[in-house]
Amino acid sequence: MSTVAKAISLLDMLGRGAPETALADLARSAGFDKATTRRLLVSLIAQGLVEQDDATRLYRLGAGLTRLALMRETQFPFLRMAVPVVEALAAETGETVHLSEYSKRGLISVHVVESAKANRVSVPLGEVLPMHATASGIAFLAFTDERIREAVLAAPMPAFTRFTIGDANTLAEHVAAARASGHSTGTQGFEEGVISVAAPILGADGFAIGAIAVAAPRVRIQKGDIDRFGGSVIAAGREIGERLFGRLPGRKRA
Amino acid sequence: MSTVAKAISLLDMLGRGAPETALADLARSAGFDKATTRRLLVSLIAQGLVEQDDATRLYRLGAGLTRLALMRETQFPFLRMAVPVVEALAAETGETVHLSEYSKRGLISVHVVESAKANRVSVPLGEVLPMHATASGIAFLAFTDERIREAVLAAPMPAFTRFTIGDANTLAEHVAAARASGHSTGTQGFEEGVISVAAPILGADGFAIGAIAVAAPRVRIQKGDIDRFGGSVIAAGREIGERLFGRLPGRKRA
Repeated sequence: MSTVAKAISLLDMLGRGAPETALADLARSAGFDKATTRRLLVSLIAQGLVEQDDATRLYRLGAGLTRLALMRETQFPFLRMAVPVVEALAAETGETVHLSEYSKRGLISVHVVESAKANRVSVPLGEVLPMHATASGIAFLAFTDERIREAVLAAPMPAFTRFTIGDANTLAEHVAAARASGHSTGTQGFEEGVISVAAPILGADGFAIGAIAVAAPRVRIQKGDIDRFGGSVIAAGREIGERLFGRLPGRKRA
Repeated sequence: MSTVAKAISLLDMLGRGAPETALADLARSAGFDKATTRRLLVSLIAQGLVEQDDATRLYRLGAGLTRLALMRETQFPFLRMAVPVVEALAAETGETVHLSEYSKRGLISVHVVESAKANRVSVPLGEVLPMHATASGIAFLAFTDERIREAVLAAPMPAFTRFTIGDANTLAEHVAAARASGHSTGTQGFEEGVISVAAPILGADGFAIGAIAVAAPRVRIQKGDIDRFGGSVIAAGREIGERLFGRLPGRKRA
């Protein structure tokens, strides 16, 4: 593991746990000795990516991360272009809508508008959505580069519920269906009682860069809702792509 | 310079320039040899903090940064709490309002609502606001820890315009005035023709964690506007602090 990878793994650990963490706990979860952990934290603090509370000596993520993310958003305004579309889709469907963006770490939930209903689906920001277990993942796989798709099909598929897809053949069928229809359906694969419908957002090269999904409690889904949501997420995904890259020929390269 | 510092300096360079950068340019600006630069980039790519375009081989900031920033925001919802207050202040004043957050790298602009007027002040997201040259910086200094204030007073003060404060005595006077009144005024110190009025946002310990500012073209500022903006930014800064930390005794520890 490179020094850089170790440092970033500390950021990840700080982001996942309680808002503030002690050195010993961080070292233990990371599996590094305390001296290494402290040395990495000192470098991260100097760059503003980590902060340490003066009084409690606990560590937390720093505003320097916000700065880097904002500089990225200035260069590539994914959220600025997508958020109005996410909001319109949430208003149209009355259900939770979430937007995800692909990175090497997986498909990351980057914006969520929750349904106003009391019984609604909640999606934490920054969460990595498992490809095999979510509608967003399947929509992404249907329109991504073949190498990425093959890697996911070859990887282990942990079960999150008793409905999670657990083998490559079934997953490949779902992916093929999503490629044919332009949208995917997730049926309680990540959380019991939740139905999701998702479509990809395509980049300038025609490959998926993320996905947009409607997620609703299963008990509320009526006949025809899934098809209706399907049409809506396809239109929303296309609109985001056009706002970012202009009108595309719509070529499916996958 | 530690390996981690080198890697983060590459992120910074990727964020400041064009949206995508070639290896040779990145190595040259960083002052690292190409092999070191590539090795660092490979680690950053593996963690999702940098992406490389398959076709052009150019490098850009990655979605992993967005993920870390979102995890931070989930733990410490600065933007979620502050944005509605920023928007209300922008509606009230009709001028550009910007919010900044302190990190070791300085005071970082994290949210901006621009005035709807054609002649308006624009503030880029992620920009580091120089402490000695901005109303936000002076408001922050007036309510921060003495060590941070002394370090800024002892540091060089580069001139951005012919109005930039250039010596420690003058800066200390402005800081003292801001501490007394609760708000600061920036008079063309960072950009000619721009007047800003700012107030601090206080953390749970009573020290400033950031600032909120109204920025307007000087030609539009009427008699009484600065006092009026002063009252408004103080109220807005206090409201953000209360939304984050609850009502405070308002003790000025600085």
